[in-house]
Amino acid sequence: MRLINGIAADSIPAADRGLAYGDGVFRTLRAADGEPLHWQRHFNKLGADCAGLAISCVAEATLLADVRAVARQFPRAVVKITVTRGSGARGYALPVPCTPLRIVEGAPLRAAADADAGITAHLCRLRLAHQPALAGIKHLNRLENVLARAEWNDPAIGEGLMLDQHENVIGGTMSNVFIAEQGRLLTPRLDQCGVAGVTRARVMALAASAATPCGEAHLSLQRVLDADEVFLVNSVIGLRPLARMGVRAWTPGPLARKIGRALAAEDARAA
Amino acid sequence: MRLINGIAADSIPAADRGLAYGDGVFRTLRAADGEPLHWQRHFNKLGADCAGLAISCVAEATLLADVRAVARQFPRAVVKITVTRGSGARGYALPVPCTPLRIVEGAPLRAAADADAGITAHLCRLRLAHQPALAGIKHLNRLENVLARAEWNDPAIGEGLMLDQHENVIGGTMSNVFIAEQGRLLTPRLDQCGVAGVTRARVMALAASAATPCGEAHLSLQRVLDADEVFLVNSVIGLRPLARMGVRAWTPGPLARKIGRALAAEDARAA
Repeated sequence: MRLINGIAADSIPAADRGLAYGDGVFRTLRAADGEPLHWQRHFNKLGADCAGLAISCVAEATLLADVRAVARQFPRAVVKITVTRGSGARGYALPVPCTPLRIVEGAPLRAAADADAGITAHLCRLRLAHQPALAGIKHLNRLENVLARAEWNDPAIGEGLMLDQHENVIGGTMSNVFIAEQGRLLTPRLDQCGVAGVTRARVMALAASAATPCGEAHLSLQRVLDADEVFLVNSVIGLRPLARMGVRAWTPGPLARKIGRALAAEDARAA
Repeated sequence: MRLINGIAADSIPAADRGLAYGDGVFRTLRAADGEPLHWQRHFNKLGADCAGLAISCVAEATLLADVRAVARQFPRAVVKITVTRGSGARGYALPVPCTPLRIVEGAPLRAAADADAGITAHLCRLRLAHQPALAGIKHLNRLENVLARAEWNDPAIGEGLMLDQHENVIGGTMSNVFIAEQGRLLTPRLDQCGVAGVTRARVMALAASAATPCGEAHLSLQRVLDADEVFLVNSVIGLRPLARMGVRAWTPGPLARKIGRALAAEDARAA
C-alpha cells in the first residue's frame, strides 16, 4: 500500500523534482501492530534532513497518520517515507511557492532467514565522494549506492562495505558500521559523506547508557580489518555482526551481542 | 506536452528508481520545426551516459519519434529527455529484468531578452565533490546544482560559477565554461566532476576546424579571473559571454564572437 500526499496511488507527478534532481529525502523504518518504532527519532531525522536541503517538512501529525495507515496493513511492517521538494518547472531554481510531496509505503517485514548469523560483506571498489554540504543526509542522490551495490550479485553476500576517497571506511551500502577495539566502540565520522542513520544514533545512546565507550573517528580499512568485532546496523535489520570480508573472518563477539540485545529490548518496549 | 514511454501522460510510476535514487540520465536540447538540433550528438551522449550507469538506452528510432512528436507542437522548442532505469522493488540492487522509463517533454523556446548581452555570474560557495565514477555524466543526482542555484535569487544574475573541492573552476550550474588566453581556448577538464555537455564538444570541434587552439585543463579561479574572455555554453542558450563576476568585468571579445557565430551558423544549417 502506498499513500501519495495521503491518498492511495501508484504514480507521482512527472514534474516532481525528486525525479528531476533527486531533490528530496527518505527514511525506512519498522512498524509493529500499526505503530512505527522509534518514531520520534525518525521524524526528527527526517526534519533535519529536509532542513539540510531547505525543504519544508510535512507536519508530524499528517505524516504519522499516513505511516499508521500503511503500517496497520501488516502485523510487522517496513515503512518507507519519501519527502521531495515537490513539482517545479524546468531549471534548478527552487520553485516559489513550493509544495513538498510525501510518499508513504508499507510492506510486510520479511523475517531474516538467519538473523543471528554474521553477514559476509563485499569490499566495494567505488569510493564515496566528499561533499560536506550533503554528508549525513539521507537524500535521494544515491547513485553511489546503486553503483556500489551493482558490484556483486552473489546472494551469499549480504552487504558491501564502502570507503571514501581518502580510503577510510564510511559504512555499508544500506547500513552504518561499528567496530570494537579493546572494549571500545567506534563508528565512522560522517562529516564528509555517508548517511548518519537512526540506528547508529541509537547504538551510540545505548553504549553511553551502558557505560561502553563509543565514539566517532576516521577509520582506515586496516583498522576495521584489525578490529576485534565489526557490526552493521540499520532500522530494518537491526544489528548484524560482520562474519567475513575477503580473507578476513570474525567470530561474533561480546559487544555486538550486548548492543544487539539492547537494541532488541528497546524495539520490544517500543512495539 | 509530455510523452511517457511514448504515451501522453503527466505522471510516472511511484516505484521508479529515477525518483528513489536519481537512477537515470537526462538531456535538454533545441528543436526547430519539429526536428531536434544536433540529434546525433545528443543521442550518442545519452547512450554514453546510460552506459555509464549500465542502463540499457532506449532505441534511437523510438526516442526520435517521441522527440519529433513533442517538438512539432512549437516552431522553436526546448525538448527534455529523461531515461531512468525503470521501476524496482525497495533496495539498491538492480532490478532483473529491468525496463527503462523514457520521458520526453517539449516547451516553446523562449527568446532570450538580450541574447548578445553578457551574463553576470555569481561565484558559488558550494564546492563540487570529486566522483570519477560519475564525472561527465548528466545523471539525475543533481542536488549539488540545486544547492548552488539556491545561493542567489537576484534576477540580474544569470548563472552561478562552480568550483570543485580543489578550488578549480568546473562550470556553471547549467552550462560549460570556456576561457580565452592569448588567442587560445581552454575548458575545464571534467574527469572528477561536472557535466561534459554536447555544446562543449561542439565548441571544441569548431575550434579545431577553425585552427583555434583549444584544450582541456584544470583551471584555477585566478586563471579564469585573469582570462581575456570567459564564455558559457549549453544547448539551449548557445553561447553567452561572461560580462561580470563580483568586481571582475569583461568586455565581449573576439573569440566568443567567432565561436558564437560558428555555433549559430551550425544551428541554422541543422534547423
